Amino acid sequence: MADQYNVAIVGATGLVGQEFLKIAMQRGFPAGELRLLASHRSAGKKITVGERELEVQEATSKSFEGIDIAFFSATTEVSTALVPAAVKAGAIVIDDSSAWRMEENVPLVVPEVNAADLEGHEGIISIPNCPTTPLCQVLWPVHVVNPIKRIIVDTYQSVSGAGASAVNELNEQTRQVLDGHAVSPHVFPHQIAFNVLPQVDVFLGSGYTKEEWKIINETRKIMHEPELAISATAVRVPVYTGHSESVHVEFTRPINVEDFTKLVHAGPGITIQDEAAVNVYPTPRSVAGKDDTYVGRIRQDQSVDSGIAFWLVSDNLRKGAALNAIQIAEELIARKLV
Amino acid sequence: MADQYNVAIVGATGLVGQEFLKIAMQRGFPAGELRLLASHRSAGKKITVGERELEVQEATSKSFEGIDIAFFSATTEVSTALVPAAVKAGAIVIDDSSAWRMEENVPLVVPEVNAADLEGHEGIISIPNCPTTPLCQVLWPVHVVNPIKRIIVDTYQSVSGAGASAVNELNEQTRQVLDGHAVSPHVFPHQIAFNVLPQVDVFLGSGYTKEEWKIINETRKIMHEPELAISATAVRVPVYTGHSESVHVEFTRPINVEDFTKLVHAGPGITIQDEAAVNVYPTPRSVAGKDDTYVGRIRQDQSVDSGIAFWLVSDNLRKGAALNAIQIAEELIARKLV
Repeated sequence: MADQYNVAIVGATGLVGQEFLKIAMQRGFPAGELRLLASHRSAGKKITVGERELEVQEATSKSFEGIDIAFFSATTEVSTALVPAAVKAGAIVIDDSSAWRMEENVPLVVPEVNAADLEGHEGIISIPNCPTTPLCQVLWPVHVVNPIKRIIVDTYQSVSGAGASAVNELNEQTRQVLDGHAVSPHVFPHQIAFNVLPQVDVFLGSGYTKEEWKIINETRKIMHEPELAISATAVRVPVYTGHSESVHVEFTRPINVEDFTKLVHAGPGITIQDEAAVNVYPTPRSVAGKDDTYVGRIRQDQSVDSGIAFWLVSDNLRKGAALNAIQIAEELIARKLV
Repeated sequence: MADQYNVAIVGATGLVGQEFLKIAMQRGFPAGELRLLASHRSAGKKITVGERELEVQEATSKSFEGIDIAFFSATTEVSTALVPAAVKAGAIVIDDSSAWRMEENVPLVVPEVNAADLEGHEGIISIPNCPTTPLCQVLWPVHVVNPIKRIIVDTYQSVSGAGASAVNELNEQTRQVLDGHAVSPHVFPHQIAFNVLPQVDVFLGSGYTKEEWKIINETRKIMHEPELAISATAVRVPVYTGHSESVHVEFTRPINVEDFTKLVHAGPGITIQDEAAVNVYPTPRSVAGKDDTYVGRIRQDQSVDSGIAFWLVSDNLRKGAALNAIQIAEELIARKLV
């Protein structure tokens, strides 16, 4: 076990890559070399990280010599192409793409839920899709004492989940609408400014989107419940950062609001913000930039026995991506797995 | 039965009142006198309706002499105060507020669902809350052949549901955020620009908002199913016009996507817009200004037997309010009830 770890960040110039560097500094992550990798287009760019000024290099299969931990947050294509080279060079990969998540020998990890799955890793660890992570984090402390029978989740996902170009598109389209100009969508299939789109990622055959299947299949894998009944509708909203989810969950045995709240509150990295009388609940604007997952609007689900309805919000760039990855790296170090 | 009907519009200067006048002209509603009523503040204002220029008068208990049909779209307080005077003066009231909806002798009507309830009216007819109307309209044609067991609905409601001042607030706050200025909320409890709020209307004791209870109780009343299992989360999104709803519904017997789609498609005033392969589904932006309720994203609910998940969008000022009111007036005329 070294005192410091050489870390490569693939996608260092992206929204999640930048957040990764910020959080690593904030938490004093024991990074030796920080190797910033990105596409050819970004190579040569200078980025200040803490007190170091670092130059971005093009990510290639030869980029990983001497690296202990490689964090990938680029496209699925980049992860598919370069992750095997990083593993071959001796790095442990923590991958933010969907390329490896459902592979049997790849742990898919939310540390608060299934850190133990890291023990069996073979070089690649995946982090879940951004709405999946907080959902599992919040439900797990209740599930272990009162198993879940069914989850229905409808999301309100911010544009930063689709990258910097999506944030620019929201800005640009918003100005165009305010100024009475025509809008032409590029990143999203339809106008996102002052609109909501019931589509995140591409459609698959069954009428569900890939994003919805990710929520369903990844939740099952993380919770080790391959038959878990879960349905999702993933919706994009004109918000910069912060994914919100309206969740309706049925448990095996009756549970009241007080007990549900107590169990969730005891879960690590969760803040309860639920004072209806004074209009207090989490919103993406209030949660952006925070590490915790925020939960509010907890109430009995009127439509079923043993049901609870609630609202959660998490910063999709932090707990939904970069923070979860760094927590995994910290866990690997604590477990002497790196 | 007269050939023409004298119509009073209380709240004539509001968003719904203006839409009511527009739709009445578009549909050639047989209006004799059009009496535009509003608060003291708007009295004296001139409004052009078709070829007439009309002056807004202050709404008082003396405003309804000679009126056949009075449409109320003001506050609950105004409806509570003035509706009895309108009925006493001999008018039939079609009320858009929540003041009278749950009264036993007040029909609460979506014409496509329960027009027959108009027969028993005693002078007051209520129209449902804006997200309730399209939900009942879409589910009814399926419910009559395969009864609903449970509905879960999460909404994405536009700001125009809260009136013109809410639209102004979204505009103003959006500019402030783009220009990097601080935002102070007035109409909504928190910033609505680039944000979503899991609160519509005020909170009630059980942790549900009044809006959520409206969806639950009004759906039960309209469908004549007082025990219907239904749960709702009502969420405000930064959209001008058009309420969207993500719906998960369980039926008594299995139903597939094709049969569900056929039944809904056969319902009056409904357009199916559901071609996932080419990213076609309704959005508030595409539906604003339309009379129909639009349905897309129809798929099996993966999490339950006999379940269907879908997405609907309707113009909250039209089918959610003014259009539904005019359709009720037309139905009253057709049934010789006025």
